[in-house]
Amino acid sequence: MADITVEFPDGKKKQFDAEATTKDVAQSIAISLAKKAVAGKLDGKLIDLNAPLKHDGKIEIVTKDSEDGLAVLRQSVALLTKVALKETFPSIQFGEEVGDADGFYVDTDKEDGQVSVDSLPAISDKVQAFIDQKLAIKHSRLSKADALKKLEGTSYEAKLVEDSDDEEFPFYEIDGVQVLASGVSFANTGDIKFFRLLSVAGAYFEGKSSNPMLQRIYGTAFYKQADLDADLQARQEAREHDHRVIGNDLDLFFVDPKAGAGLPYWMPNGATIRRTVERYIIDKEVADGYKHVYTPVLANLDLYKTSGHWAHYREDMFPPMDMGDGEMLELRPMNCPSHIQIYNHHIRSYRELPLRIAELGMMHRYEKSGALSGLQRVREMTLNDGHTFVALDQVQDEFKKILRLIMDVYKDFNINDYSFRLSYRDPENTEKYFDDDEMWNRSQTMLKGAMDDLGLDYYEAEGEAAFYGPKLDIQTKTALGNDETMSTIQLDFMLPDRFDLKYVGADGEDHRPVMIHRGIVGTMERFIAYLTEIYKGAFPTWLAPKQVKIIPVSDDKHGEYAESLNKQLLAAGVRAEVDHRGEKMNYLIRDAQTHKIPYTLVVGDQEMADKAVSVRKYGEQNSESMSADDFEKEVLKDIANYSNN
Amino acid sequence: MADITVEFPDGKKKQFDAEATTKDVAQSIAISLAKKAVAGKLDGKLIDLNAPLKHDGKIEIVTKDSEDGLAVLRQSVALLTKVALKETFPSIQFGEEVGDADGFYVDTDKEDGQVSVDSLPAISDKVQAFIDQKLAIKHSRLSKADALKKLEGTSYEAKLVEDSDDEEFPFYEIDGVQVLASGVSFANTGDIKFFRLLSVAGAYFEGKSSNPMLQRIYGTAFYKQADLDADLQARQEAREHDHRVIGNDLDLFFVDPKAGAGLPYWMPNGATIRRTVERYIIDKEVADGYKHVYTPVLANLDLYKTSGHWAHYREDMFPPMDMGDGEMLELRPMNCPSHIQIYNHHIRSYRELPLRIAELGMMHRYEKSGALSGLQRVREMTLNDGHTFVALDQVQDEFKKILRLIMDVYKDFNINDYSFRLSYRDPENTEKYFDDDEMWNRSQTMLKGAMDDLGLDYYEAEGEAAFYGPKLDIQTKTALGNDETMSTIQLDFMLPDRFDLKYVGADGEDHRPVMIHRGIVGTMERFIAYLTEIYKGAFPTWLAPKQVKIIPVSDDKHGEYAESLNKQLLAAGVRAEVDHRGEKMNYLIRDAQTHKIPYTLVVGDQEMADKAVSVRKYGEQNSESMSADDFEKEVLKDIANYSNN
Repeated sequence: MADITVEFPDGKKKQFDAEATTKDVAQSIAISLAKKAVAGKLDGKLIDLNAPLKHDGKIEIVTKDSEDGLAVLRQSVALLTKVALKETFPSIQFGEEVGDADGFYVDTDKEDGQVSVDSLPAISDKVQAFIDQKLAIKHSRLSKADALKKLEGTSYEAKLVEDSDDEEFPFYEIDGVQVLASGVSFANTGDIKFFRLLSVAGAYFEGKSSNPMLQRIYGTAFYKQADLDADLQARQEAREHDHRVIGNDLDLFFVDPKAGAGLPYWMPNGATIRRTVERYIIDKEVADGYKHVYTPVLANLDLYKTSGHWAHYREDMFPPMDMGDGEMLELRPMNCPSHIQIYNHHIRSYRELPLRIAELGMMHRYEKSGALSGLQRVREMTLNDGHTFVALDQVQDEFKKILRLIMDVYKDFNINDYSFRLSYRDPENTEKYFDDDEMWNRSQTMLKGAMDDLGLDYYEAEGEAAFYGPKLDIQTKTALGNDETMSTIQLDFMLPDRFDLKYVGADGEDHRPVMIHRGIVGTMERFIAYLTEIYKGAFPTWLAPKQVKIIPVSDDKHGEYAESLNKQLLAAGVRAEVDHRGEKMNYLIRDAQTHKIPYTLVVGDQEMADKAVSVRKYGEQNSESMSADDFEKEVLKDIANYSNN
Repeated sequence: MADITVEFPDGKKKQFDAEATTKDVAQSIAISLAKKAVAGKLDGKLIDLNAPLKHDGKIEIVTKDSEDGLAVLRQSVALLTKVALKETFPSIQFGEEVGDADGFYVDTDKEDGQVSVDSLPAISDKVQAFIDQKLAIKHSRLSKADALKKLEGTSYEAKLVEDSDDEEFPFYEIDGVQVLASGVSFANTGDIKFFRLLSVAGAYFEGKSSNPMLQRIYGTAFYKQADLDADLQARQEAREHDHRVIGNDLDLFFVDPKAGAGLPYWMPNGATIRRTVERYIIDKEVADGYKHVYTPVLANLDLYKTSGHWAHYREDMFPPMDMGDGEMLELRPMNCPSHIQIYNHHIRSYRELPLRIAELGMMHRYEKSGALSGLQRVREMTLNDGHTFVALDQVQDEFKKILRLIMDVYKDFNINDYSFRLSYRDPENTEKYFDDDEMWNRSQTMLKGAMDDLGLDYYEAEGEAAFYGPKLDIQTKTALGNDETMSTIQLDFMLPDRFDLKYVGADGEDHRPVMIHRGIVGTMERFIAYLTEIYKGAFPTWLAPKQVKIIPVSDDKHGEYAESLNKQLLAAGVRAEVDHRGEKMNYLIRDAQTHKIPYTLVVGDQEMADKAVSVRKYGEQNSESMSADDFEKEVLKDIANYSNN
């Protein structure tokens, strides 16, 4: 056969027989490389280690220690899982299966009851048996027509092949069972080392809510036991912090994709936390000089044409609604145009500046359904939003005032680990930004000056400002240690211009204000996801949905006293509750702990006689006795101080 | 000419010459009737008194004392107004003009500055001059082609004729000026007696926001001076109570049709009232055992197909949004399906019932733009909504509990004049209702029993229940004395069925709950419109956007003391504010009264020396001196008691 020329990543070229495989290529370089090789990558596409190269191209040797190497391993385990499932449940149908740097999954559907987490141990044993038997994994590639013929009678796989633009489709045969694959596999089951089937969850076929829901089996695999252990540990850690898991356990919220993807329902417990945060932030802002408003979530599309959102942000916006009377209404993607409406409703005087407009403003953003996640990524959200309208020479003072407010709020929420990032325009490319040198120069100097005056450390990011003005981002750490932008103070020279905003100066002339967009805690959805993860659901007393659980030792004997305590606490504004179920005391105490209630009060004969309570704080083993009145004082102090127990 | 036969309202028929006019017909009956006649109505269509009848038909003689009689009078004045405007502003363009039972209006547009309220006296004088001169009003009717020719060069009138299905178009000539008319006029200006041009306001051409905004001149007219006086008095009364006028004067809210018809923007003052009401009602409901939630304003259209809203209520719903991934999202028209989602998220036990779910739920209803009005009729609204899920045998107790809560809330808002209306199914037509005799019979008996137990008077309306269950409406009176439904308790047997709601009973079996929809104060929009009208904007202290205004006699000398008082009050949670403008004291006091602020404090040398304040309550002429601390106590008591000063 004719020779082919392959090019290596370093640019060197070499000739091989056209039937040569990636393994041959690796071996020609070094035996040790051939040993680590698990697949090839020809012109950027993964290929089987033992597949003939057949034509010229750029080659990479995929080794175990790369992300692609992990993907091949996981794709191989996914195939074994499919075969194990097929042998166990002959009528099973498969959807997509994926193996990648995150792990792997296999989508399944069964008429006679879905695959559940209970089946995983048996499937897992079967996969392990394949591995132990070191079976060959036979690779073949079929044309679309042949693949469709082979897949006759399947519901989803035939659809996947039908919809694909590929010309060839890989099938692998293990233990006499041939299955369609989406990627590249090992040639022998014995190459697989450490794997784990993790969980089962519903997932729409092709990610579309109009399609049937399949059962997705998740798993992962590694080349080393230590890596698998570390991954399982990290998954456990993430699970313990995961607001979706905690949100379910503590009944905070749920999302029902049938009723709408990315549209959370806040259950009473979650709603209580949210309401507490909302009232807190409104009161804080009003005390700081903000004027809170309510503005409509809908507006005429023209408003977003004027603002520029429709031209530059349309992809993230919902489709407009034709009202049939010449009006096109749009769900707002941001609140700024609404607050500009408030500003522009009156002629403004310099005496009114800085004018601070704030709102818990509901907005809608179009996100792909695959990107949605719990409260973290949603399509409907309520933003702790504020816009300050200032004269240019007020920028520095206002910026400081906003910063002080943000840090004050952080203190109350016990957010201590944060850093500042100041973004300027690129001094080499000023033509890429809103055209007003004076505004840029003066305001950037003022922001920097403010940071210095306040003695804060900050990172300066030249060229990272938005088109319309410089900004400060405040980065906090999530529960898993990732950076997250919690707050932003964004100057805007553009919108005042687009909406022709004015104020009458002391000189009687019209002037253009600067607009400052600012967020303190972001959206209610994201912030409460953040808090849930940070606190692992053990919210501080002032935020806890239930603050005090009162457990009578005997409901018959002490239930009435418990009720009188409850009444006292409720009247004082404490979210208390009596557990009248009359179950064993230890069970009830454990139950209160499981629900992460800050205070559990146990009341028996002694407490009743002394008008006292036996107090156990969440996470502590010991109880403390005190008078009911003292306890009321303590819990009220705890709430008033935003204490982080 | 051939004779024609006319038929009178009493069925009698009579023959006339085809050229006979309505006046001739009236005269043939009685001279006195001919004197009172102002137009005819042939086959239901108004015609000029002096127009030949020309063909057979049913005739009515329109007299002064009828609504049609008023319409003819007002149409005549509208024409005179058009002519007066045309003579005053030769370049003026006209839109629609209407004369009816409510008054009349003329739409106008001028390139060189719009007609303003300042022009009305001069226009009015001109109209009066026409009347005094007893000019002939010459009637002619043109074909569409001729009318369009005559209207060449007009922007709006030509469009109106173009779009009309009529074959003939009436023109009237007065003082040598010929104008298009939409109705029927007198034949002589001398027949017009008492009229008034009232106001000018913007109105879109043809009521569509995509069309240009014209200036609409409003007026009215009567046959008797006393009727005109009474009407002007009633208009003044309505204006004083009108929440749109007060909302503008006190800067509570505004609607900007350009940004969206029926979508109010709540300015800081209005938002403060709304927030106070919202917190009040949530706290009240939570204390009464309701679980407050937040649910999304959007849902998959399927949810409203299941609920039946899409089939039966679609006209009032917004157009669905195609999300491009197979999902159709719909702005909810009601919150019930959302609360059913909350109910259905868990398996429910009889121990959890009654389960009370509440929310300030935002909803969207499609209303024709012409029907929209201030906060009263809007397209986006937030409802004080609640749904209680009960076992059938709990209906009576829960109904009583809800009633007590409603009456308790009424007391706090000082709503004392209300009545009850209990709606049953029609016992003769039970097949027209949800099919469950036991549910209907037992629950109707329970509702009636509850009313009797509570010793309340009520009206029983047989056959006025909705398809899905009996209900109680509570009617209050608006500021102008009209009946308004403030609260409703609506039983629903249907939705639990459609959504297959269940609870596990004490017997371990599944049972169907009854759902009770209940509203206490309705939507925030409508309720605050109601309160604004009832109080004429002078809100009780607990609701007032600004509660205390502090005026230093001399800002230089007493400004600092005023600030210390302000700080004291703000810290106590009182919405206080210092007026530092340094204007004359009497002007500042008057200004505080104009803004209807409950308490005005004046502080000078004496007050500063005594740590005291001079207090003037809204609407009172005299001031009272008291210590600052006593004042703080008084205003806090006032707020805590929801006092109606």
